[in-house]
Amino acid sequence: MDDELDASGWRCALPGAAPRTVQMGHGSGGRMMSELISTLFQRHFSNPFLDALDDGATLPAPAGRLVYSTDSYVVDPLFFPGGNIGDLAVNGTINDLCMCGATPLYLSAGFIIEEGFPLDELEQIVHSMAEAARGANTLIVSGDTKVVDKGKADRLFINTSGIGVLSIQHAMGSHHLRRGDAILLSGPIGDHGMAVLSQRQDLGFSSTLRSDTAALHEMSAALLRACGEAVHALRDPTRGGLAAVLNEFARASHVAIELQEAAIPVRPQVAAACDVLGLDPLYIANEGKMVVVVAAERAQAALDVLRGDPLGAAAERIGEVCAGNPGQVSMHTPLGGWRIIDQPYSDPLPRIC
Amino acid sequence: MDDELDASGWRCALPGAAPRTVQMGHGSGGRMMSELISTLFQRHFSNPFLDALDDGATLPAPAGRLVYSTDSYVVDPLFFPGGNIGDLAVNGTINDLCMCGATPLYLSAGFIIEEGFPLDELEQIVHSMAEAARGANTLIVSGDTKVVDKGKADRLFINTSGIGVLSIQHAMGSHHLRRGDAILLSGPIGDHGMAVLSQRQDLGFSSTLRSDTAALHEMSAALLRACGEAVHALRDPTRGGLAAVLNEFARASHVAIELQEAAIPVRPQVAAACDVLGLDPLYIANEGKMVVVVAAERAQAALDVLRGDPLGAAAERIGEVCAGNPGQVSMHTPLGGWRIIDQPYSDPLPRIC
Repeated sequence: MDDELDASGWRCALPGAAPRTVQMGHGSGGRMMSELISTLFQRHFSNPFLDALDDGATLPAPAGRLVYSTDSYVVDPLFFPGGNIGDLAVNGTINDLCMCGATPLYLSAGFIIEEGFPLDELEQIVHSMAEAARGANTLIVSGDTKVVDKGKADRLFINTSGIGVLSIQHAMGSHHLRRGDAILLSGPIGDHGMAVLSQRQDLGFSSTLRSDTAALHEMSAALLRACGEAVHALRDPTRGGLAAVLNEFARASHVAIELQEAAIPVRPQVAAACDVLGLDPLYIANEGKMVVVVAAERAQAALDVLRGDPLGAAAERIGEVCAGNPGQVSMHTPLGGWRIIDQPYSDPLPRIC
Repeated sequence: MDDELDASGWRCALPGAAPRTVQMGHGSGGRMMSELISTLFQRHFSNPFLDALDDGATLPAPAGRLVYSTDSYVVDPLFFPGGNIGDLAVNGTINDLCMCGATPLYLSAGFIIEEGFPLDELEQIVHSMAEAARGANTLIVSGDTKVVDKGKADRLFINTSGIGVLSIQHAMGSHHLRRGDAILLSGPIGDHGMAVLSQRQDLGFSSTLRSDTAALHEMSAALLRACGEAVHALRDPTRGGLAAVLNEFARASHVAIELQEAAIPVRPQVAAACDVLGLDPLYIANEGKMVVVVAAERAQAALDVLRGDPLGAAAERIGEVCAGNPGQVSMHTPLGGWRIIDQPYSDPLPRIC
């Protein structure tokens, strides 16, 4: 019955009509789903592991320890300046793997789609995912599509999970901060959160805000090659922003962290938007930035590596791990003040990723 | 501020009140989310890989090739006779790995929760997931929680992905059927779909219908140990049912498949419910059954292995791969008739998993 397909390969559910939207049957396990897979997902994501179309992807044995991570994305709206839910979902999971010291290899993608979602928007999103995966030398090898009735989901949610192979020998992470370590930040904070917020209904402040969504695999790999064991922790400050990451680090390692506010890069338009809305950039989500905790004697070398990458051109040394109340993050202000940076309790901006 | 926690460890968002539901802040990346993770997810799923609470889980190098799979679950309702969305999500991904000839090792779990979802129901579901994972000797090593505003999701969606290590040397799957192979089925079909359907609004036929949700890891491993390369394909007939699996097999391997209707086990209550609703059990989802394609000379040995497992006690040889139109699945009826079993186009029962 392949002659029922229209020119683009999408099946017409009603003769004479072309409902270019996702239908319940696209999540059914039947022929409609097979067609969606072959005409959309497989066309964009194609690789031998995915194309086998078995229940799971059979992959080569990786040469080393694995790193494994998952994230669901419910960002609202789906499209925003600088990206969309698709590249956000791919970059986000790639970054989670990189922050553990891994080289990302394989990704999975699970779609939950609201009935009636436009197929051309889905294709744009899938295209962005394919580009993002390719850009980071990763393959999307396993996928799943579910469709829920109209009104039962907010357009589209995507889950990505990822597998990487560990590229470091030393232990690294939130528990490994030491007194004297330097805190580096790869660039200005708050771009993603404020760019998404700028697109929301009733918050139409127009500006040049753009999400920083990007894959950090090259920068993190270069840093670990150059500084090795001197790197004590890496983290991308997403939900909860820089404040959440540093509070988690300080608590996990039982150390104090002191920041210099003047050193923390914030774009003027982000600072202005935060000011208007009563938000603090320290708590706003980023999707292409990296916090680096590094032994002081390698801090300058690490900063040079970050600045040598286009994504880290504006990197700064923003603070240090020091004696003081274990678990406390504080900040020196430019005018000589000092304040505690609390762990956020909730989030000023829900559904930011 | 830990004294703000109530006795059970759940934070009271309003002094004096105990809103035992999921709030937007539980998905925020802040303290509310940390508390949800430690008091619920970590408490039930605890293992050293998850407990590190880094962006990804760092795992030992597996001894062999990997199998990797993902699935999202949007089943409606969340609780049904025989299980809930939690064990369904864990068993489903475990089964996907097993059907590729893998031993499941690690799972991820991503939750998308509607604001206002009762925490006690979430705990029941998480508890079921933990039990199911333990039962199959797997660890949930990575997780993620997102909360969306009320009305923007239908209560709860769960994505699971899983990693297994390949336990076979030979190629197996939908492309590997050969003429003469026997088709085995591990037990009666339609239980899951009809059990879920029985719980839906306006379809309150009460009965003894129960979902068959179960992990097939022991049965598939025993089968592969006993019959090795004689096993040409394994598949769990979920969405689209037995008909979808066999049509996919017949097309991928360019062979015909002939079934004997009298040999296909269907419980009387499932047959009766299907009859009333005009449904065909061949197209109804299962969540604890296995289709086995095996070389004819090992068919009896394979059947014996299936029947030796409690989940396969009612296993039957239901048909064979034969000459005939490539891609065609047909069935001989008990009265001497013969009919084509088409690939389902859509699905009579959406949101069944």
